Amino acid sequence: MRVVRVGHRYVRDYRTLTHLCLVSRALGAEAIYLEEVESELLETVDAINKTWGGDFEVREGKWKKVFHDAKKEGRTIIHLTMYGTPLQDEISNLRKHDSFLVAVGGPKVPGEVYKMADYNIAVTSQPHSEVAALAITLHDLQKGEELKKVFGDYKLKIIPSPRGKQVEQKT
Amino acid sequence: MRVVRVGHRYVRDYRTLTHLCLVSRALGAEAIYLEEVESELLETVDAINKTWGGDFEVREGKWKKVFHDAKKEGRTIIHLTMYGTPLQDEISNLRKHDSFLVAVGGPKVPGEVYKMADYNIAVTSQPHSEVAALAITLHDLQKGEELKKVFGDYKLKIIPSPRGKQVEQKT
Repeated sequence: MRVVRVGHRYVRDYRTLTHLCLVSRALGAEAIYLEEVESELLETVDAINKTWGGDFEVREGKWKKVFHDAKKEGRTIIHLTMYGTPLQDEISNLRKHDSFLVAVGGPKVPGEVYKMADYNIAVTSQPHSEVAALAITLHDLQKGEELKKVFGDYKLKIIPSPRGKQVEQKT
Repeated sequence: MRVVRVGHRYVRDYRTLTHLCLVSRALGAEAIYLEEVESELLETVDAINKTWGGDFEVREGKWKKVFHDAKKEGRTIIHLTMYGTPLQDEISNLRKHDSFLVAVGGPKVPGEVYKMADYNIAVTSQPHSEVAALAITLHDLQKGEELKKVFGDYKLKIIPSPRGKQVEQKT
């Protein structure tokens, strides 16, 4: 599972970009591709990997090259857009594939993205959040199995608890 | 379905706050409660309602009062926290209830929130995004039915399309 964010970032987008990275990591993607990777973001994600485990990667890549590489590798490209076909109508078809590149739009998505994607998928046709659309798509594609993912080589691990906070610390 | 965000906002949180509002709206909640409602945010959500329909509300309210009111109304309070019980382990229990207040944390969540909530639920025990955690919870609680919600009294409506953009404009 890979994720790509199409488009350049705006200044106020930093937090959204961080959320896109962390959601991709937490929900089982191996990497996210961004058009520009700033060192601050990279440090944030590295720190999360070191503390909470796993080897999720933030990679720099222009969307078109990332799309072409995905096609070569046999990945199905799912572009998330409020203009697309409802997720619930296509989910059975999507699940027939086993390797994906999920593309989320930034401020300006070129028309070519719609053409090159295998599927243009809408998580509701209402305006909301690319972070939420990505989360629901990753969740449904993997049938919720991603929630059970174990992250290796961690320093901290949460012990789920009905009340309060329990954290295991590796010494 | 109602949502409350516990805690005050930081300056750089404006976008996250907007996403929480729009995700709540798009995924079928009737209202979100925030500790402080700024006019800019209210205008954004009002504009979305006017254009895309529905009557979703952003309401101002201190979390404790919102929790107390929810209890009086018989709502089940689900507090989303990475320290909680995995969503996938509790979802069948949660679905036995039919009226909810979903609480998402801001920067500092008081310990009392963990005690007053009926459930403390984790959407993975990894750090990611309250927007994503909210989206997956609303989605699973409503078994995906929320994706079919129709918003009344709209000016614009998207006609789902496998390629490109189709929008119906009410005249």
